[in-house]
Amino acid sequence: MVGAQARASSSLRRTLARAFSSSSISPFFHGIHVFQCPDSVGIVARLSECIASRGGNIHCVDVFVPEDKQIFYSRSEFAFDSTRWPRDVLESDFQKIGKHFNAERSIVRVPDLDPRYKIAVLASKQDHCLVDLLYRWQEGRLPVDINCIISNHPRTSNTHVIRFLERHGIPYHYLPTALGNKREQEMLELVEDTDFLVLARYMQILSGGFLQAYGKDIINIHHGLLPSFKGGNPSRQAFEAGVKLIGATSHFVTEELDAGPIIEQMVERVSHKDNLTSFVMKSENLEKQCLSQAIKSYCELRVLPYENRKTVVF
Amino acid sequence: MVGAQARASSSLRRTLARAFSSSSISPFFHGIHVFQCPDSVGIVARLSECIASRGGNIHCVDVFVPEDKQIFYSRSEFAFDSTRWPRDVLESDFQKIGKHFNAERSIVRVPDLDPRYKIAVLASKQDHCLVDLLYRWQEGRLPVDINCIISNHPRTSNTHVIRFLERHGIPYHYLPTALGNKREQEMLELVEDTDFLVLARYMQILSGGFLQAYGKDIINIHHGLLPSFKGGNPSRQAFEAGVKLIGATSHFVTEELDAGPIIEQMVERVSHKDNLTSFVMKSENLEKQCLSQAIKSYCELRVLPYENRKTVVF
Amino acid sequence: MVGAQARASSSLRRTLARAFSSSSISPFFHGIHVFQCPDSVGIVARLSECIASRGGNIHCVDVFVPEDKQIFYSRSEFAFDSTRWPRDVLESDFQKIGKHFNAERSIVRVPDLDPRYKIAVLASKQDHCLVDLLYRWQEGRLPVDINCIISNHPRTSNTHVIRFLERHGIPYHYLPTALGNKREQEMLELVEDTDFLVLARYMQILSGGFLQAYGKDIINIHHGLLPSFKGGNPSRQAFEAGVKLIGATSHFVTEELDAGPIIEQMVERVSHKDNLTSFVMKSENLEKQCLSQAIKSYCELRVLPYENRKTVVF
Amino acid sequence: MVGAQARASSSLRRTLARAFSSSSISPFFHGIHVFQCPDSVGIVARLSECIASRGGNIHCVDVFVPEDKQIFYSRSEFAFDSTRWPRDVLESDFQKIGKHFNAERSIVRVPDLDPRYKIAVLASKQDHCLVDLLYRWQEGRLPVDINCIISNHPRTSNTHVIRFLERHGIPYHYLPTALGNKREQEMLELVEDTDFLVLARYMQILSGGFLQAYGKDIINIHHGLLPSFKGGNPSRQAFEAGVKLIGATSHFVTEELDAGPIIEQMVERVSHKDNLTSFVMKSENLEKQCLSQAIKSYCELRVLPYENRKTVVF
Repeated sequence: MVGAQARASSSLRRTLARAFSSSSISPFFHGIHVFQCPDSVGIVARLSECIASRGGNIHCVDVFVPEDKQIFYSRSEFAFDSTRWPRDVLESDFQKIGKHFNAERSIVRVPDLDPRYKIAVLASKQDHCLVDLLYRWQEGRLPVDINCIISNHPRTSNTHVIRFLERHGIPYHYLPTALGNKREQEMLELVEDTDFLVLARYMQILSGGFLQAYGKDIINIHHGLLPSFKGGNPSRQAFEAGVKLIGATSHFVTEELDAGPIIEQMVERVSHKDNLTSFVMKSENLEKQCLSQAIKSYCELRVLPYENRKTVVF
Repeated sequence: MVGAQARASSSLRRTLARAFSSSSISPFFHGIHVFQCPDSVGIVARLSECIASRGGNIHCVDVFVPEDKQIFYSRSEFAFDSTRWPRDVLESDFQKIGKHFNAERSIVRVPDLDPRYKIAVLASKQDHCLVDLLYRWQEGRLPVDINCIISNHPRTSNTHVIRFLERHGIPYHYLPTALGNKREQEMLELVEDTDFLVLARYMQILSGGFLQAYGKDIINIHHGLLPSFKGGNPSRQAFEAGVKLIGATSHFVTEELDAGPIIEQMVERVSHKDNLTSFVMKSENLEKQCLSQAIKSYCELRVLPYENRKTVVF
Repeated sequence: MVGAQARASSSLRRTLARAFSSSSISPFFHGIHVFQCPDSVGIVARLSECIASRGGNIHCVDVFVPEDKQIFYSRSEFAFDSTRWPRDVLESDFQKIGKHFNAERSIVRVPDLDPRYKIAVLASKQDHCLVDLLYRWQEGRLPVDINCIISNHPRTSNTHVIRFLERHGIPYHYLPTALGNKREQEMLELVEDTDFLVLARYMQILSGGFLQAYGKDIINIHHGLLPSFKGGNPSRQAFEAGVKLIGATSHFVTEELDAGPIIEQMVERVSHKDNLTSFVMKSENLEKQCLSQAIKSYCELRVLPYENRKTVVF
Repeated sequence: MVGAQARASSSLRRTLARAFSSSSISPFFHGIHVFQCPDSVGIVARLSECIASRGGNIHCVDVFVPEDKQIFYSRSEFAFDSTRWPRDVLESDFQKIGKHFNAERSIVRVPDLDPRYKIAVLASKQDHCLVDLLYRWQEGRLPVDINCIISNHPRTSNTHVIRFLERHGIPYHYLPTALGNKREQEMLELVEDTDFLVLARYMQILSGGFLQAYGKDIINIHHGLLPSFKGGNPSRQAFEAGVKLIGATSHFVTEELDAGPIIEQMVERVSHKDNLTSFVMKSENLEKQCLSQAIKSYCELRVLPYENRKTVVF
């Protein structure tokens, strides 16, 4: 799912890295590397030897080899001296190891050198998730650049959001959808330069064509505890099922509705005293936390696909 | 769902009550009353006036009137002096009020005067729930009498359970089921004298005929977070769905498989590091707690049916 | 603790009630009544009879009589027709019952008739709780009027908050404290017209003199799981104690620092991977939820003092 | 804290390993290695290279380098072929690396080759934790051998436990303590051959002399959320403090009472409806889970000391 992220390693990044490493500021940086390849003997040894040989110091390693599968996943964090290990050499070092092990995925990020991930947020009428993301972003707790907001709802009532966006220079695109016109072509153009998309309670179903054309990851928040309560109005579904726990699920979007790999789930207790309104309010509180947690984990390269419908969340 | 409990008010109970109230022991008792009737003005007033007029002192009241429904539910706990308010008068006082309000349900229990609920526990091969129930029962934390254990599994391997049952004089009936012979007729005879049944991971589906013939409540534990993962092997279903939270659900048994009103649900976090075995182990831990909690609430008259598929759990 | 609320029953309220009850809008309202008095037989009967005699329909009752104490607490919700039971008659009816039972507390609220509670929010440098309160307030989820914000921090950096307050006409009072000058006299004047105060991470200790002069309830959020980690820098205290769970506590302010009756507590798991920064971030997330939950419960008359250091939270 | 475990690598273990590796059964085993040393470049590389060079395949690595400390912790799991990498060679390979990096700790375990950890369980009157441990042990869920139970309580009432122990050949030592005679010398002799001790609600304080003489790890369960509620009757302390969450804490025993490094903590919600009895019951449920979780983690070499009062729990 993070495959698309690899494409972001632009010339800009290399320029920046060079600029930094020749400047007078500290040459020590924090790098993250994730790796996925067929399992074999010696992968950890090779990766860690590579880091050590360049003077890098590993702070954190996570390795995961699913039972009875021949796949290897890892994520490493390490400190390195960019004068000894320039950003572009770091990149090519890991690429060589990737080739050696036939890696499906080998991605490096140096958060303080690389450009931040660029996202677009798609929303509809309910804007609690959108507002929460904007607040966390303003507080510096969501390490992304927000290219734009796209909504099929005019939001003329919530002038608060519109003013916030204006103040921060984030465009708000109002694309009212109609039967037979989901405005997906316009959306594609608007999100072309993003690294991934966030559906913050966007209530339209993106077509398979859109998913293929966009080609990068899309993270959705579903206001139900998947795989229960797929589709429309999950809070009402849960209310009518008489559940004693409600939940929210953040997941990757795939063609099959609400069936993509789950990244994070959260629950809260309900009782007979709760009505549909309080189900919705409790759910909204969960959705905000569950979505921002998923985005944060994703940006830190903690989320990897695993088999067909699963995720590794390091 | 507690309707069947009303039938337990046998002559024995009245005898006991009389015996107690004429004895030299303290005449103060703790009573519980639950009530369900069409909503109208003055129900709480009438019930509480009845208790007060007999010198009873209310310790706890719960009232629930669902939004947009014309139904009233209540549960009261009160202290009373059985010399001033004998057990049988108490019964008839509430029956009069029940008639007045066309109550669907008006049940009184005085735990220290009335006989304990009698149950039978149905189990299959997995006995973690059965063992947990027996342990809690032995510790005095499940206020029931266990008439018998019925299982379609011989349990020759677990001599521990068999010895425990022998020591406590609880019969263990081994009824191996076969295609076309679920032994339900024999089961019906064995459970005739019970107040409700507990399915402690009984892996056979009880027929509609059995449910009707038994006619009283049956509490099941399902090792999944209903309405997700109905039917067989819910732990495997959850594992394959890549969920990040697993759960257990205790619920009333109805003819529709795993769709009866939910009493209690509990969850625990899982991650990619969990395999099917640890899913099962975590689930078993939840199942034990969820089932015993449901039984305890039920015995305290806290669980009432609500609409079609819901429960009030006071 | 809600004693002070009684004083808010101003002439305005009566005027409003009269205006409403003579208007063409629906005369049906939702009332809340809380009661505390020495325990005796017949209290529920008398309260519910009063409501029923005026045609009121009880939707919800909570009664609590602590073990071995002779105190009675109740909270009732009921629907009533204000043409049959005008707001001022309602008030005097309950006052009579209060007198009869020597009630320490008998408070009625009709949220759609009575003025909203007026609060002031005190804050310091950290503004996550303040921002969260403002957002929930704007969304209509905190049923209060915010008279003003008082802070010992200029907040020149967070223009977002200042703009929000300007737009909504909420004064922001910057009262820098100094050794020996806590500006409490000015604060007292600013909060004179409020019903209760909220300390949204206000890092100054209010003097006993201030508490007495203000005389109404003050709700604080503490970023630790009281009674652990009282006083300064509880996140650091928790970090250094090596705990595996961190928490937040909302409580009433009393003269003894961080020892007032607890209203709500929430926890989150931490591990060796968490550093002080992530302790703080996780804590802030808890604080926001814990504080707004306490305010909401308080406004709904759910929070009552209980013994010396406890609360009933219906 | 697991330092003492190293001493268990007896000749027996090597004999067993040889026996197994020369037998006809599968020569593939699962090994665990934990390591702690001053931080430097290349540790992961060296460890993983060692495993790879012997054909071992790493399944799982956890590395932890605390911020601003120069310490390195790791835990690796790997599959290996004992014909290619005999148990004793494995041991000496890791010992060499330990020497190279001046390791404070380098412990290997091969659960299917090495003897199980031997423990003694100390208990007092309350036996819910003891019974729970015995049940989990019988189910094969606690990978230890129980050398004996020591108690300062005769347990004549609970014949269930005594019979269980007799059936399984586990000695029960009744050592009634008296003022000035804690029977510690006898206890020392009884536990001499154990790898660690478990205090399952043992209500006596072990002296510093005992701790030094025993010299290995001791795991305690405290029925409160440390560092709150140290010492006696923590449930009552919590009840009187009016908390809304209660907890249990498993921790290592040090000379300072209830202040040793915390391994695991669990919480449950309480309300004004809970009395001291239900505080105790909810607490007992937590204690059982919290203690067995700590023992399980410890046996899997997941628990390492960290600074003075903390633990790494991989």
